[in-house]
Amino acid sequence: MMSTKRDQIIETTCQLMEMQGYHATGLNQILAESGAPKGSLYYYFPKGKEELAIAAVEHTSRAIQGNINSVLTAVPEPAAAIKTFLTILAEKVAESGYQAGGPITAIALESASTNETLRETCHDAYQSWQDIFAQKLQTGGYSAAHAARLATLLIAAIEGAIILSRSARSPRPLQDVAQEIDLLLKCTHSG
Amino acid sequence: MMSTKRDQIIETTCQLMEMQGYHATGLNQILAESGAPKGSLYYYFPKGKEELAIAAVEHTSRAIQGNINSVLTAVPEPAAAIKTFLTILAEKVAESGYQAGGPITAIALESASTNETLRETCHDAYQSWQDIFAQKLQTGGYSAAHAARLATLLIAAIEGAIILSRSARSPRPLQDVAQEIDLLLKCTHSG
Repeated sequence: MMSTKRDQIIETTCQLMEMQGYHATGLNQILAESGAPKGSLYYYFPKGKEELAIAAVEHTSRAIQGNINSVLTAVPEPAAAIKTFLTILAEKVAESGYQAGGPITAIALESASTNETLRETCHDAYQSWQDIFAQKLQTGGYSAAHAARLATLLIAAIEGAIILSRSARSPRPLQDVAQEIDLLLKCTHSG
Repeated sequence: MMSTKRDQIIETTCQLMEMQGYHATGLNQILAESGAPKGSLYYYFPKGKEELAIAAVEHTSRAIQGNINSVLTAVPEPAAAIKTFLTILAEKVAESGYQAGGPITAIALESASTNETLRETCHDAYQSWQDIFAQKLQTGGYSAAHAARLATLLIAAIEGAIILSRSARSPRPLQDVAQEIDLLLKCTHSG
């Protein structure tokens, strides 16, 4: 199936770029690890590595949007939903042996000052995750402006705590963040 | 001066690894950009790139400890001191054209699952910054345990907001985080 080959290439790109970053990941390694023939890579991504990286970030972004949505939909109250999301995340990062988490962080960092198109794609991904949290917070009575600021803090704290947890090889930083964010939401709850 | 040559090599390493990460930075590039002769690199860092990266992270860590200490010492009240630190940080990141900030993030991410010694060095750096904020919070009346959790949230939110600000090319994420952290500290202030 042609669409399966395209997906394989994209998923391999996501994994390699999460582990190694953008610059260290070459097209030959993507070809070798995805098992796709060279022709199909250039057929689906004629512009090469940048086009592939953009597709990979967009693919990851949609997957994470799905994860966030499924947890936030399952738990009605915003503070409880956010606590549940962070608890599950801490478990997932630990279960991966602290290898996974923050799938676009390396690309976002590398592209921030070197590749404008890729930088914008990463920015759009972060914004899309923020918007989901902000909307959930608004259902709890926060104004649109306050919900947006809280959602920014959430995404920032999640990104940072994943780095700290991986670096400490411990779920503790993510758990501490979950506890303090919960305290903040209880303090400021206006509903 | 021999110590100046060593410093030059370390500072070049810090800059290159901040921009490109650990894997993408080679010894030849460090030599070329620092202007140091090959012999002096092997004289000061006989074990090569890993030893150099560890020295670079430790150097960066001490510099940041100095920055945090100088702001937190200048402003007596913890919440005000932390707000000042974040405001200055947002300005610095903007002034760098969104190129600087989060100097060890790329190394921490890359080393998390590939280099145990370097991972521990990054972890120690994060811990040292956290400890300074935690101590300041304790002077405001927080228990040691609560101050440690808040300091973890702070370091996580700062790390993450730098990535978001660089990716958005805007000081806004750092400013939003400053505002929400201030709210949290005012809500939970037990002094």
